[in-house]
Amino acid sequence: MEAHFYEVNVNWKENRRGTMNSPELNTTIEVATPPQFPKGEAGVWSPEHLFTAAVSSCLMTTFLAIAENSKLEFTSFDVKSKGKLEVAEGKYLMTEVILEPVLTIAHGKDTERAGRILQKSEAACLISNSIKSKITMIPTVLVAHEKSLA
Amino acid sequence: MEAHFYEVNVNWKENRRGTMNSPELNTTIEVATPPQFPKGEAGVWSPEHLFTAAVSSCLMTTFLAIAENSKLEFTSFDVKSKGKLEVAEGKYLMTEVILEPVLTIAHGKDTERAGRILQKSEAACLISNSIKSKITMIPTVLVAHEKSLA
Repeated sequence: MEAHFYEVNVNWKENRRGTMNSPELNTTIEVATPPQFPKGEAGVWSPEHLFTAAVSSCLMTTFLAIAENSKLEFTSFDVKSKGKLEVAEGKYLMTEVILEPVLTIAHGKDTERAGRILQKSEAACLISNSIKSKITMIPTVLVAHEKSLA
Repeated sequence: MEAHFYEVNVNWKENRRGTMNSPELNTTIEVATPPQFPKGEAGVWSPEHLFTAAVSSCLMTTFLAIAENSKLEFTSFDVKSKGKLEVAEGKYLMTEVILEPVLTIAHGKDTERAGRILQKSEAACLISNSIKSKITMIPTVLVAHEKSLA
């Protein structure tokens, strides 16, 4: 693959808030300083949330590709994630991202393989590989309720 | 400041697409694999766009804080940004983020100081400091049209 560029435009509106859009995308998102900083605004996506979302959504897209290649049958995939902001060496940094994926597979026999596919997805995630933060993953694999025999 | 956690939940919906939300935020965003990958979807925010947006929106929020502390008067602030995806050492990585802020200041006398404030904002951006990608900033400082004398 050739190098590819992803474009995002940010436009300041008022106070600590702006909008983000892209010639490539259909949706505009509001963004603001989060309430942990002076004049921050609650309820609006912040750079810290976007950073965390980039990591956890990359786990999803990487998992979807690897699961398909591996012919893993699953019925749901969700990720709870938390990005940790703290002061380290005198600077604010996102020092850790904690990922808690919950995968529901179709067949109990795939449980171990599903765990390995989640580990492989985390290791291959291109956003995780582009950041300095520690990545901690706590995976859960469930088995979909199999129909009882009649 | 104590450490703070930013929560994001990702829920897979279908194909290569899911939704992202947070107990802390008012808006749900769709996210998908971008069209540069197999079965990717055009027009939907991708992990690569979110990564780029985290960096460029952080430049905005950092600039807003430093400009206020510096009592810099300005009338607009926008950032065009591009995140570069490429294969490096056999892996996909976001290797560079190019930031093109355009700042319009109220008074021509502040032009040099405004340039320094932009440089300081880039250096202090907590997302830039949390990633491995090279950051390239190409700043533009404009002066708002000053009223001509009557």
